Amino acid sequence: MTPTQTLQLHSTVHEDSTVTLALVEVDLPAPGADDVVVRMEAAPINPSDLGVMFARADMSTVVSDASVATHAVRATLSPEVMQGATGRIGLAIPAGNEGGGVVVAAGTSDAAQALLGKVVGIRGGAMYAQYRCIAAQDCLVLPEGTAPVDAASCFVNPLTALGMVETMRMEGHTGLVHTAAASNLGQMLQKICTADGIPLVNIVRKPEQADLMRGLGAAHVCDTSQPAFMEDLTTALAETGATLGFDATGGGALTSHILAAMESAANRDAKTFSRYGSTVHKQVYVYGSLEDGPTLLHRTYGMSWGVGGWLLTNFLRDIPPATADRLKNRVATEIKTTFASHYTKVVSLSGALNPDEIAQYSKRATGQKYLIDPTRA
Amino acid sequence: MTPTQTLQLHSTVHEDSTVTLALVEVDLPAPGADDVVVRMEAAPINPSDLGVMFARADMSTVVSDASVATHAVRATLSPEVMQGATGRIGLAIPAGNEGGGVVVAAGTSDAAQALLGKVVGIRGGAMYAQYRCIAAQDCLVLPEGTAPVDAASCFVNPLTALGMVETMRMEGHTGLVHTAAASNLGQMLQKICTADGIPLVNIVRKPEQADLMRGLGAAHVCDTSQPAFMEDLTTALAETGATLGFDATGGGALTSHILAAMESAANRDAKTFSRYGSTVHKQVYVYGSLEDGPTLLHRTYGMSWGVGGWLLTNFLRDIPPATADRLKNRVATEIKTTFASHYTKVVSLSGALNPDEIAQYSKRATGQKYLIDPTRA
Repeated sequence: MTPTQTLQLHSTVHEDSTVTLALVEVDLPAPGADDVVVRMEAAPINPSDLGVMFARADMSTVVSDASVATHAVRATLSPEVMQGATGRIGLAIPAGNEGGGVVVAAGTSDAAQALLGKVVGIRGGAMYAQYRCIAAQDCLVLPEGTAPVDAASCFVNPLTALGMVETMRMEGHTGLVHTAAASNLGQMLQKICTADGIPLVNIVRKPEQADLMRGLGAAHVCDTSQPAFMEDLTTALAETGATLGFDATGGGALTSHILAAMESAANRDAKTFSRYGSTVHKQVYVYGSLEDGPTLLHRTYGMSWGVGGWLLTNFLRDIPPATADRLKNRVATEIKTTFASHYTKVVSLSGALNPDEIAQYSKRATGQKYLIDPTRA
Repeated sequence: MTPTQTLQLHSTVHEDSTVTLALVEVDLPAPGADDVVVRMEAAPINPSDLGVMFARADMSTVVSDASVATHAVRATLSPEVMQGATGRIGLAIPAGNEGGGVVVAAGTSDAAQALLGKVVGIRGGAMYAQYRCIAAQDCLVLPEGTAPVDAASCFVNPLTALGMVETMRMEGHTGLVHTAAASNLGQMLQKICTADGIPLVNIVRKPEQADLMRGLGAAHVCDTSQPAFMEDLTTALAETGATLGFDATGGGALTSHILAAMESAANRDAKTFSRYGSTVHKQVYVYGSLEDGPTLLHRTYGMSWGVGGWLLTNFLRDIPPATADRLKNRVATEIKTTFASHYTKVVSLSGALNPDEIAQYSKRATGQKYLIDPTRA
């Protein structure tokens, strides 16, 4: 029997500069001919989900608020953050970018019917729910024997890691720098780069993370907690020739430090001094915001540099469909190896609204990741 | 008789984290067949010259230092700035990006001989000098009746202004935003945009600058000193559809404010809220550094944004030669109208080393510009 209702986590920004996240019951649309209904069994809380869930609120202000729903929390936004959130005032936005589950109902088309009973990974919002109706063609069908929990994280991290490599090739760079490199995503990226022979410079924040990455075979690991960090980074950049960085931290000066080290590396063998810096184009994309606060660009690296936002959705929109298919097929094939994810805790939909749990998962600490299991009470 | 020596202003960064700027006599190379020797009569001190002259030193530390030369000054660099200047330690770099003068000697080629006696504008460093040897093809020959002083600023500001418009077209934008808009350069840009029918949003810092720009026919002027600045800017961006900015200030949050206002403008008519911001690509190039300190990016404008360095030299290198010729011809034709420059004070080569004068011209105040006349004692 096709489900007609589902519990969902909804986020709403209000005129009074607060955001509420609540568990609510909503109608599930009936699947069209080409749609399927997925029973969600696992959905990760990625850093990129936190922005939708909490709208960059001050996380020290999170409190339960039963006036909204039985399970709900409220938090306060600073005036600056509120300015960027005016577009979503009053809108109930269902949260959860991706997840894995089992197809339990399908539209009449052959493509939809063929998915009945299959384990699939899906993305596109509203994944923190018991059920999700989605187009059959948007499902990533995983090989026989894959558990729904293994399908939970098959889009955001795997395609972001593969997208970094594709972006590198498209923009004419030959090596990569990655921050927060010991993350699930960072580990995938190292495995891809090892397999594909791409020089990768990993930037981590702690010695144990450096050990972890070296254990994965990383040739270049630079630890920001070490006094020689900038020297190590410059040497690694000179050795790899990497001129493209992806920064997950966003806030602070790390992006600027990477550009400065790239410039130093480019000038190491320079015969003459160029008054406006090297002509080597240095690029860092900010794809996350693990650190709040502004990005600080010290501009000590000449004039051939760029910084910009990088978003998986935009990347997938801009590449040829055949390229997107190639990347997705690689994810499906390597879901239990290259693209295996690890979780530190599993919570229910209501458990994700427990302020103590929120305090934990909103830390966005490397190596710590929550999974929501909507089948749990 | 071909001159064989010239006085020049040389800048040197030293191991002890100081920079010296000195007036020194050097040999002038004999012109090759295709070269000419220009007697320099006027060379502006542009903001872009200050970096070469003082290496981003702390300008409060400037003192005369006769141990270097009869006319010389010394200033101190902060550790951070010094890090970016290691490539030029010990190098004597001749200063002055552009200037105007008269061709007083020429190589044997017809092209060089044809320039004898002509008033030309030239660029490429070492312009703060009595004489400059340069390839004939690098001279911009000005129409009969142009004075050398009118030729002094015919590269940096005019080609930068024209380069902004070309960049806008090449990157698919349809309008421009410009900061420090009441500058010589900003006035040129307004005249170009008026002539070419390009929407331009001028950002100024004072009411009198706003009046000046409106007097030039500017339709959109936003004053950062006004409380309604962000609102005014957003409205101007919504009206013009400008999604490309050029920021002369560099330091501080102005670049970020422009991106935020572009995003607000893009979302004004949005029917739905996009969790990662609009998909309108918003770009700001930092082409100057009127404000010291880091560029602060608040990242409240989604993920479709870019910030980067923009340098005239790189732009001219990357465009087709025919495009460069078209731009230069326009400058020559309109040198006394669109591209006329104004100076607040004229100094000699040694006068440019007077600490009191340095304190003035290093302020980089809009509307204040020094000219060096190397023919003066």
